[in-house]
Amino acid sequence: MPASKVYTIPALKRLPVYLHHLRALHAAGEDYVASPALARALRLDSVTVRKDLEIIGVAGLTGVGYPVEKLIDGIETFLGWKNSSEAFLAGTSGIGNALLGFQGFSAYGLKIIAAFDRDPPEDGMIHGVPVFPFSEFRHLTERLKIRLAILCVEEEDAQHVAEQMVEAGILAIWNFTRRTLHLPSGIITQQVNLAGDLAVLSVRLAERLHGASRIPDPDLKGVK
Amino acid sequence: MPASKVYTIPALKRLPVYLHHLRALHAAGEDYVASPALARALRLDSVTVRKDLEIIGVAGLTGVGYPVEKLIDGIETFLGWKNSSEAFLAGTSGIGNALLGFQGFSAYGLKIIAAFDRDPPEDGMIHGVPVFPFSEFRHLTERLKIRLAILCVEEEDAQHVAEQMVEAGILAIWNFTRRTLHLPSGIITQQVNLAGDLAVLSVRLAERLHGASRIPDPDLKGVK
Repeated sequence: MPASKVYTIPALKRLPVYLHHLRALHAAGEDYVASPALARALRLDSVTVRKDLEIIGVAGLTGVGYPVEKLIDGIETFLGWKNSSEAFLAGTSGIGNALLGFQGFSAYGLKIIAAFDRDPPEDGMIHGVPVFPFSEFRHLTERLKIRLAILCVEEEDAQHVAEQMVEAGILAIWNFTRRTLHLPSGIITQQVNLAGDLAVLSVRLAERLHGASRIPDPDLKGVK
Repeated sequence: MPASKVYTIPALKRLPVYLHHLRALHAAGEDYVASPALARALRLDSVTVRKDLEIIGVAGLTGVGYPVEKLIDGIETFLGWKNSSEAFLAGTSGIGNALLGFQGFSAYGLKIIAAFDRDPPEDGMIHGVPVFPFSEFRHLTERLKIRLAILCVEEEDAQHVAEQMVEAGILAIWNFTRRTLHLPSGIITQQVNLAGDLAVLSVRLAERLHGASRIPDPDLKGVK
Protein backbone atom coordinates (compact mmCIF):
# COMPACT_ATOMS: atom_id res chain seq x y z
CA MET A 1 0.00 0.00 0.00
CA PRO A 2 1.17 3.58 -0.62
CA ALA A 3 1.86 4.09 3.06
CA SER A 4 1.70 7.86 3.00
CA LYS A 5 -1.57 8.24 1.09
CA VAL A 6 -4.51 9.56 3.10
CA TYR A 7 -7.99 8.90 1.75
CA THR A 8 -11.61 9.38 2.73
CA ILE A 9 -14.16 6.81 3.83
CA PRO A 10 -16.41 7.46 0.79
CA ALA A 11 -13.46 6.91 -1.56
CA LEU A 12 -12.59 3.70 0.24
CA LYS A 13 -16.20 2.53 -0.03
CA ARG A 14 -16.17 3.14 -3.78
CA LEU A 15 -13.14 0.91 -4.42
CA PRO A 16 -15.18 -2.33 -4.39
CA VAL A 17 -17.63 -0.70 -6.80
CA TYR A 18 -14.78 -0.01 -9.24
CA LEU A 19 -13.41 -3.49 -8.63
CA HIS A 20 -16.74 -5.10 -9.42
CA HIS A 21 -17.12 -3.17 -12.68
CA LEU A 22 -13.48 -3.68 -13.69
CA ARG A 23 -13.84 -7.44 -13.25
CA ALA A 24 -16.84 -7.33 -15.60
CA LEU A 25 -14.82 -5.34 -18.15
CA HIS A 26 -11.95 -7.79 -17.82
CA ALA A 27 -14.32 -10.72 -18.33
CA ALA A 28 -15.57 -8.92 -21.46
CA GLY A 29 -11.99 -8.77 -22.77
CA GLU A 30 -11.42 -5.04 -22.20
CA ASP A 31 -7.74 -4.19 -21.66
CA TYR A 32 -8.10 -0.46 -20.95
CA VAL A 33 -10.80 1.82 -19.60
CA ALA A 34 -10.89 5.62 -19.62
CA SER A 35 -12.02 7.51 -16.51
CA PRO A 36 -15.00 9.15 -18.27
CA ALA A 37 -16.27 5.69 -19.28
CA LEU A 38 -15.81 4.43 -15.72
CA ALA A 39 -17.57 7.55 -14.43
CA ARG A 40 -20.55 7.05 -16.76
CA ALA A 41 -20.91 3.37 -15.91
CA LEU A 42 -20.84 3.98 -12.16
CA ARG A 43 -22.69 7.33 -12.18
CA LEU A 44 -19.77 9.25 -10.72
CA ASP A 45 -17.97 12.30 -12.08
CA SER A 46 -14.60 11.65 -13.71
CA VAL A 47 -12.76 13.93 -11.29
CA THR A 48 -13.90 11.68 -8.43
CA VAL A 49 -12.87 8.61 -10.43
CA ARG A 50 -9.38 9.94 -11.13
CA LYS A 51 -8.93 11.02 -7.49
CA ASP A 52 -10.15 7.66 -6.20
CA LEU A 53 -7.84 5.69 -8.45
CA GLU A 54 -4.88 7.80 -7.32
CA ILE A 55 -5.22 5.90 -4.04
CA ILE A 56 -4.30 2.71 -5.89
CA GLY A 57 -1.30 4.32 -7.52
CA VAL A 58 -1.98 2.90 -10.98
CA ALA A 59 -1.44 5.51 -13.69
CA GLY A 60 -3.75 5.91 -16.66
CA LEU A 61 -2.30 6.41 -20.15
CA THR A 62 -3.41 9.58 -21.93
CA GLY A 63 -5.83 8.71 -24.72
CA VAL A 64 -5.85 5.06 -23.72
CA GLY A 65 -7.04 4.98 -20.12
CA TYR A 66 -6.27 2.71 -17.21
CA PRO A 67 -4.97 -0.85 -17.67
CA VAL A 68 -7.93 -2.91 -16.41
CA GLU A 69 -5.99 -5.90 -15.13
CA LYS A 70 -3.42 -3.73 -13.32
CA LEU A 71 -6.22 -1.76 -11.70
CA ILE A 72 -8.02 -4.91 -10.53
CA ASP A 73 -4.79 -6.23 -9.09
CA GLY A 74 -4.02 -2.87 -7.49
CA ILE A 75 -7.40 -2.56 -5.76
CA GLU A 76 -7.37 -6.17 -4.56
CA THR A 77 -3.89 -5.70 -3.17
CA PHE A 78 -4.75 -2.37 -1.57
CA LEU A 79 -7.82 -3.82 0.14
CA GLY A 80 -5.94 -6.95 1.15
CA TRP A 81 -8.44 -9.06 -0.76
CA LYS A 82 -5.83 -11.07 -2.66
CA ASN A 83 -5.91 -13.78 -0.04
CA SER A 84 -9.26 -14.27 1.65
CA SER A 85 -9.62 -13.29 5.30
CA GLU A 86 -11.67 -15.58 7.49
CA ALA A 87 -14.52 -14.37 9.68
CA PHE A 88 -17.01 -15.63 12.24
CA LEU A 89 -20.67 -14.65 12.25
CA ALA A 90 -22.85 -14.39 15.37
CA GLY A 91 -26.63 -14.59 15.19
CA THR A 92 -27.99 -16.79 12.41
CA SER A 93 -31.59 -15.63 12.14
CA GLY A 94 -32.74 -12.84 9.81
CA ILE A 95 -29.91 -10.92 8.21
CA GLY A 96 -27.29 -13.33 9.62
CA ASN A 97 -28.94 -16.17 7.77
CA ALA A 98 -29.01 -14.15 4.55
CA LEU A 99 -25.32 -13.28 4.89
CA LEU A 100 -24.44 -16.95 5.35
CA GLY A 101 -26.30 -17.67 2.12
CA PHE A 102 -24.65 -14.82 0.23
CA GLN A 103 -21.97 -16.16 -2.10
CA GLY A 104 -20.70 -12.75 -3.14
CA PHE A 105 -18.34 -12.20 -0.20
CA SER A 106 -15.77 -14.61 -1.62
CA ALA A 107 -15.22 -12.09 -4.42
CA TYR A 108 -14.10 -9.72 -1.64
CA GLY A 109 -11.79 -12.17 0.02
CA LEU A 110 -14.17 -12.72 2.91
CA LYS A 111 -14.84 -16.25 4.03
CA ILE A 112 -17.33 -16.88 6.85
CA ILE A 113 -15.94 -20.15 8.17
CA ALA A 114 -18.29 -20.60 11.14
CA ALA A 115 -21.41 -19.11 12.68
CA PHE A 116 -22.64 -18.97 16.27
CA ASP A 117 -26.12 -18.89 17.70
CA ARG A 118 -27.98 -19.33 20.98
CA ASP A 119 -29.55 -22.43 19.54
CA PRO A 120 -27.81 -23.90 16.49
CA PRO A 121 -29.91 -25.92 14.01
CA GLU A 122 -30.34 -29.69 14.44
CA ASP A 123 -27.87 -30.58 11.71
CA GLY A 124 -25.44 -27.86 12.84
CA MET A 125 -25.26 -26.24 9.39
CA ILE A 126 -26.77 -23.19 7.64
CA HIS A 127 -26.08 -22.70 3.91
CA GLY A 128 -23.16 -25.09 4.31
CA VAL A 129 -21.56 -23.11 7.14
CA PRO A 130 -21.16 -24.90 10.48
CA VAL A 131 -23.10 -23.29 13.35
CA PHE A 132 -21.91 -23.62 16.95
CA PRO A 133 -23.32 -22.49 20.31
CA PHE A 134 -21.87 -19.18 21.62
CA SER A 135 -20.01 -21.15 24.27
CA GLU A 136 -17.63 -22.29 21.51
CA PHE A 137 -16.84 -18.78 20.26
CA ARG A 138 -13.84 -17.96 22.43
CA HIS A 139 -12.21 -21.36 22.03
CA LEU A 140 -12.55 -21.37 18.23
CA THR A 141 -11.53 -17.72 17.83
CA GLU A 142 -8.29 -18.37 19.72
CA ARG A 143 -7.63 -21.67 17.99
CA LEU A 144 -8.25 -20.37 14.46
CA LYS A 145 -6.85 -16.88 15.18
CA ILE A 146 -9.97 -15.17 13.77
CA ARG A 147 -9.82 -11.36 13.94
CA LEU A 148 -12.99 -10.32 12.09
CA ALA A 149 -16.53 -11.00 13.31
CA ILE A 150 -19.94 -10.19 11.86
CA LEU A 151 -22.51 -9.23 14.49
CA CYS A 152 -26.12 -10.13 13.62
CA VAL A 153 -27.60 -10.90 17.05
CA GLU A 154 -30.69 -9.28 18.59
CA GLU A 155 -30.09 -5.63 19.37
CA GLU A 156 -30.40 -6.12 23.14
CA ASP A 157 -27.61 -8.72 23.04
CA ALA A 158 -25.32 -6.78 20.71
CA GLN A 159 -23.15 -4.93 23.26
CA HIS A 160 -22.73 -8.00 25.46
CA VAL A 161 -21.85 -10.33 22.58
CA ALA A 162 -19.48 -7.73 21.09
CA GLU A 163 -17.64 -7.51 24.44
CA GLN A 164 -17.28 -11.30 24.49
CA MET A 165 -15.95 -11.17 20.92
CA VAL A 166 -13.29 -8.66 21.93
CA GLU A 167 -12.34 -10.74 24.99
CA ALA A 168 -11.92 -13.70 22.64
CA GLY A 169 -9.47 -11.73 20.48
CA ILE A 170 -11.67 -10.25 17.75
CA LEU A 171 -10.24 -6.94 16.50
CA ALA A 172 -12.82 -5.88 13.92
CA ILE A 173 -16.61 -6.14 14.18
CA TRP A 174 -19.02 -5.62 11.29
CA ASN A 175 -22.12 -4.54 13.18
CA PHE A 176 -25.44 -5.34 11.47
CA THR A 177 -27.43 -4.47 14.61
CA ARG A 178 -28.83 -1.02 15.39
CA ARG A 179 -26.96 -0.83 18.69
CA THR A 180 -24.06 1.65 18.80
CA LEU A 181 -21.22 -0.42 20.26
CA HIS A 182 -18.97 0.84 23.04
CA LEU A 183 -15.71 -1.09 22.91
CA PRO A 184 -12.09 -0.52 23.90
CA SER A 185 -10.25 1.90 21.61
CA GLY A 186 -8.31 0.03 18.96
CA ILE A 187 -11.25 -2.25 18.24
CA ILE A 188 -12.52 -1.54 14.74
CA THR A 189 -16.27 -1.41 14.21
CA GLN A 190 -18.27 -0.73 11.08
CA GLN A 191 -22.01 -0.35 11.48
CA VAL A 192 -24.48 -1.06 8.69
CA ASN A 193 -27.03 1.73 8.74
CA LEU A 194 -29.95 0.63 6.57
CA ALA A 195 -32.24 3.09 8.31
CA GLY A 196 -29.89 5.81 7.10
CA ASP A 197 -30.38 4.74 3.49
CA LEU A 198 -34.10 4.67 4.11
CA ALA A 199 -33.94 8.21 5.51
CA VAL A 200 -32.24 9.44 2.34
CA LEU A 201 -34.81 7.67 0.18
CA SER A 202 -37.76 8.97 2.23
CA VAL A 203 -36.61 12.57 2.08
CA ARG A 204 -35.72 12.42 -1.62
CA LEU A 205 -39.06 10.84 -2.45
CA ALA A 206 -40.94 13.45 -0.41
CA GLU A 207 -39.00 16.17 -2.24
CA ARG A 208 -39.68 14.51 -5.59
CA LEU A 209 -43.41 14.49 -4.80
CA HIS A 210 -43.70 17.84 -3.01
CA GLY A 211 -41.04 20.10 -4.35
CA ALA A 212 -37.51 21.42 -4.48
CA SER A 213 -34.54 19.28 -3.52
CA ARG A 214 -32.38 20.34 -0.59
CA ILE A 215 -29.78 17.60 -0.94
CA PRO A 216 -26.97 17.24 -3.50
CA ASP A 217 -27.59 15.37 -6.76
CA PRO A 218 -27.06 11.64 -6.06
CA ASP A 219 -25.74 11.09 -9.60
CA LEU A 220 -22.60 12.99 -8.71
CA LYS A 221 -22.16 11.21 -5.41
CA GLY A 222 -22.31 7.59 -6.46
CA VAL A 223 -22.73 4.90 -3.86
CA LYS A 224 -23.19 6.32 -0.38
CA MET B 1 -39.84 20.71 6.92
CA PRO B 2 -37.68 23.87 7.07
CA ALA B 3 -37.83 24.28 3.30
CA SER B 4 -34.68 26.34 2.94
CA LYS B 5 -32.36 24.14 4.96
CA VAL B 6 -29.64 22.33 3.03
CA TYR B 7 -28.01 19.31 4.64
CA THR B 8 -25.54 16.56 3.82
CA ILE B 9 -26.16 12.89 3.12
CA PRO B 10 -24.14 11.77 6.20
CA ALA B 11 -26.21 14.08 8.43
CA LEU B 12 -29.40 12.70 6.92
CA LYS B 13 -28.19 9.14 7.50
CA ARG B 14 -27.52 9.93 11.16
CA LEU B 15 -31.07 11.12 11.85
CA PRO B 16 -32.47 7.58 12.28
CA VAL B 17 -29.58 6.82 14.63
CA TYR B 18 -30.60 9.78 16.82
CA LEU B 19 -34.24 8.77 16.52
CA HIS B 20 -33.51 5.23 17.64
CA HIS B 21 -31.57 6.40 20.70
CA LEU B 22 -34.08 9.12 21.56
CA ARG B 23 -36.92 6.59 21.53
CA ALA B 24 -34.94 4.48 24.02
CA LEU B 25 -34.40 7.55 26.24
CA HIS B 26 -38.09 8.39 26.00
CA ALA B 27 -39.02 4.82 26.94
CA ALA B 28 -36.67 5.20 29.93
CA GLY B 29 -38.59 8.29 31.04
CA GLU B 30 -35.96 10.87 30.05
CA ASP B 31 -37.48 14.29 29.22
CA TYR B 32 -34.30 16.09 28.17
CA VAL B 33 -30.95 15.10 26.71
CA ALA B 34 -27.83 17.27 26.35
CA SER B 35 -25.81 17.13 23.12
CA PRO B 36 -22.64 15.87 24.87
CA ALA B 37 -24.61 12.92 26.29
CA LEU B 38 -26.09 12.19 22.85
CA ALA B 39 -22.61 12.46 21.35
CA ARG B 40 -21.12 10.02 23.85
CA ALA B 41 -23.92 7.48 23.42
CA LEU B 42 -23.66 7.52 19.62
CA ARG B 43 -19.87 7.99 19.40
CA LEU B 44 -20.13 11.31 17.60
CA ASP B 45 -18.67 14.67 18.55
CA SER B 46 -21.10 17.17 20.08
CA VAL B 47 -20.48 19.74 17.34
CA THR B 48 -21.74 17.22 14.79
CA VAL B 49 -24.73 16.45 17.01
CA ARG B 50 -25.68 20.11 17.40
CA LYS B 51 -25.27 20.73 13.66
CA ASP B 52 -27.32 17.66 12.78
CA LEU B 53 -30.14 18.62 15.10
CA GLU B 54 -30.26 22.12 13.61
CA ILE B 55 -31.76 20.39 10.55
CA ILE B 56 -34.77 19.46 12.67
CA GLY B 57 -35.17 22.99 13.97
CA VAL B 58 -35.75 21.97 17.59
CA ALA B 59 -33.82 24.20 19.99
CA GLY B 60 -31.95 22.88 23.03
CA LEU B 61 -32.23 24.69 26.35
CA THR B 62 -28.93 25.83 27.85
CA GLY B 63 -28.05 23.66 30.83
CA VAL B 64 -31.05 21.40 30.22
CA GLY B 65 -30.59 20.03 26.73
CA TYR B 66 -33.04 19.04 24.03
CA PRO B 67 -36.62 18.04 24.78
CA VAL B 68 -36.60 14.33 23.89
CA GLU B 69 -40.23 14.01 22.83
CA LYS B 70 -40.11 17.15 20.67
CA LEU B 71 -36.95 15.89 19.00
CA ILE B 72 -38.47 12.47 18.26
CA ASP B 73 -41.52 14.14 16.79
CA GLY B 74 -39.35 16.56 14.83
CA ILE B 75 -37.20 13.86 13.26
CA GLU B 76 -40.18 11.64 12.44
CA THR B 77 -41.94 14.57 10.82
CA PHE B 78 -38.83 15.66 8.93
CA LEU B 79 -38.26 12.16 7.55
CA GLY B 80 -41.93 11.74 6.75
CA TRP B 81 -42.04 8.68 9.00
CA LYS B 82 -45.11 9.82 10.96
CA ASN B 83 -47.38 7.90 8.65
CA SER B 84 -45.88 4.74 7.20
CA SER B 85 -45.11 4.64 3.50
CA GLU B 86 -45.85 1.42 1.67
CA ALA B 87 -43.31 -0.39 -0.49
CA PHE B 88 -42.98 -3.40 -2.77
CA LEU B 89 -40.03 -5.78 -2.69
CA ALA B 90 -38.70 -7.72 -5.69
CA GLY B 91 -36.60 -10.86 -5.28
CA THR B 92 -37.43 -12.95 -2.23
CA SER B 93 -34.37 -15.14 -1.89
CA GLY B 94 -31.32 -14.22 0.18
CA ILE B 95 -31.36 -10.63 1.41
CA GLY B 96 -34.92 -10.09 0.14
CA ASN B 97 -36.13 -12.88 2.35
CA ALA B 98 -34.29 -11.42 5.34
CA LEU B 99 -35.78 -7.97 4.74
CA LEU B 100 -39.28 -9.46 4.61
CA GLY B 101 -38.59 -11.05 7.99
CA PHE B 102 -37.18 -7.86 9.48
CA GLN B 103 -39.72 -6.24 11.80
CA GLY B 104 -37.65 -3.12 12.40
CA PHE B 105 -38.76 -1.20 9.30
CA SER B 106 -42.15 -0.38 10.83
CA ALA B 107 -40.29 1.81 13.32
CA TYR B 108 -39.20 3.81 10.27
CA GLY B 109 -42.63 4.06 8.77
CA LEU B 110 -41.83 1.55 6.05
CA LYS B 111 -44.34 -1.17 5.34
CA ILE B 112 -43.51 -3.84 2.74
CA ILE B 113 -47.03 -4.77 1.71
CA ALA B 114 -46.16 -7.22 -1.08
CA ALA B 115 -43.21 -9.03 -2.61
CA PHE B 116 -42.58 -10.31 -6.13
CA ASP B 117 -40.53 -13.22 -7.37
CA ARG B 118 -39.97 -15.31 -10.48
CA ASP B 119 -41.48 -18.24 -8.64
CA PRO B 120 -43.50 -17.38 -5.54
CA PRO B 121 -43.77 -20.00 -2.76
CA GLU B 122 -46.56 -22.57 -2.73
CA ASP B 123 -48.59 -20.82 -0.05
CA GLY B 124 -47.89 -17.40 -1.60
CA MET B 125 -46.49 -15.96 1.64
CA ILE B 126 -43.04 -15.20 3.12
CA HIS B 127 -42.85 -13.97 6.73
CA GLY B 128 -46.52 -13.07 6.44
CA VAL B 129 -46.04 -10.92 3.33
CA PRO B 130 -47.90 -11.99 0.17
CA VAL B 131 -45.62 -12.91 -2.75
CA PHE B 132 -46.79 -12.50 -6.35
CA PRO B 133 -45.23 -13.34 -9.73
CA PHE B 134 -43.49 -10.38 -11.45
CA SER B 135 -46.33 -10.30 -13.96
CA GLU B 136 -48.51 -8.77 -11.22
CA PHE B 137 -46.07 -5.94 -10.40
CA ARG B 138 -47.30 -3.27 -12.79
CA HIS B 139 -50.97 -3.91 -12.13
CA LEU B 140 -50.58 -3.79 -8.33
CA THR B 141 -48.23 -0.77 -8.38
CA GLU B 142 -50.76 1.25 -10.34
CA ARG B 143 -53.70 0.04 -8.32
CA LEU B 144 -52.09 0.67 -4.91
CA LYS B 145 -50.15 3.76 -6.09
CA ILE B 146 -46.87 2.38 -4.70
CA ARG B 147 -43.88 4.70 -5.30
CA LEU B 148 -41.06 2.96 -3.39
CA ALA B 149 -39.59 -0.44 -4.33
CA ILE B 150 -36.84 -2.56 -2.79
CA LEU B 151 -34.70 -4.33 -5.38
CA CYS B 152 -33.25 -7.68 -4.23
CA VAL B 153 -33.19 -9.67 -7.48
CA GLU B 154 -30.15 -11.37 -9.00
CA GLU B 155 -27.60 -8.84 -10.22
CA GLU B 156 -28.01 -9.78 -13.89
CA ASP B 157 -31.76 -9.04 -13.67
CA ALA B 158 -31.41 -5.81 -11.66
CA GLN B 159 -31.35 -3.26 -14.52
CA HIS B 160 -34.19 -4.93 -16.41
CA VAL B 161 -36.42 -5.29 -13.33
CA ALA B 162 -35.65 -1.71 -12.27
CA GLU B 163 -36.75 -0.44 -15.69
CA GLN B 164 -40.00 -2.38 -15.38
CA MET B 165 -40.50 -0.85 -11.93
CA VAL B 166 -40.10 2.65 -13.33
CA GLU B 167 -42.52 1.89 -16.19
CA ALA B 168 -45.01 0.74 -13.56
CA GLY B 169 -44.74 4.08 -11.75
CA ILE B 170 -42.10 3.46 -9.09
CA LEU B 171 -40.22 6.69 -8.27
CA ALA B 172 -37.68 5.49 -5.68
CA ILE B 173 -35.66 2.26 -5.70
CA TRP B 174 -33.68 0.91 -2.76
CA ASN B 175 -31.08 -1.14 -4.59
CA PHE B 176 -29.67 -4.12 -2.64
CA THR B 177 -27.96 -5.53 -5.74
CA ARG B 178 -24.40 -4.74 -6.81
CA ARG B 179 -25.54 -3.48 -10.19
CA THR B 180 -25.27 0.30 -10.71
CA LEU B 181 -28.69 1.23 -12.11
CA HIS B 182 -29.16 3.50 -15.12
CA LEU B 183 -32.62 5.02 -14.98
CA PRO B 184 -34.36 8.18 -16.19
CA SER B 185 -33.36 11.31 -14.25
CA GLY B 186 -35.88 12.05 -11.55
CA ILE B 187 -35.93 8.43 -10.44
CA ILE B 188 -34.41 8.17 -6.96
CA THR B 189 -32.07 5.29 -6.23
CA GLN B 190 -30.17 4.40 -3.10
CA GLN B 191 -27.67 1.55 -3.34
CA VAL B 192 -26.64 -0.55 -0.37
CA ASN B 193 -22.89 -1.00 -0.57
CA LEU B 194 -21.95 -3.77 1.87
CA ALA B 195 -18.70 -4.36 0.00
CA GLY B 196 -17.83 -0.75 0.80
CA ASP B 197 -18.23 -1.40 4.52
CA LEU B 198 -16.11 -4.49 4.11
CA ALA B 199 -13.44 -2.43 2.34
CA VAL B 200 -13.28 0.00 5.27
CA LEU B 201 -13.07 -2.91 7.73
CA SER B 202 -10.40 -4.71 5.71
CA VAL B 203 -8.16 -1.68 5.43
CA ARG B 204 -8.63 -0.66 9.07
CA LEU B 205 -7.88 -4.18 10.23
CA ALA B 206 -4.78 -4.38 8.04
CA GLU B 207 -3.64 -1.04 9.48
CA ARG B 208 -4.41 -2.22 13.00
CA LEU B 209 -2.27 -5.30 12.40
CA HIS B 210 0.51 -3.77 10.28
CA GLY B 211 0.85 -0.13 11.23
CA ALA B 212 -0.19 3.48 11.06
CA SER B 213 -3.72 4.52 10.18
CA ARG B 214 -4.33 6.59 7.07
CA ILE B 215 -8.09 7.10 7.55
CA PRO B 216 -9.89 9.40 9.97
CA ASP B 217 -10.86 8.13 13.42
CA PRO B 218 -14.24 6.36 13.06
CA ASP B 219 -15.24 7.42 16.59
CA LEU B 220 -15.63 10.97 15.38
CA LYS B 221 -17.49 10.00 12.23
CA GLY B 222 -20.25 7.82 13.64
CA VAL B 223 -22.28 5.60 11.36
CA LYS B 224 -21.16 5.82 7.73
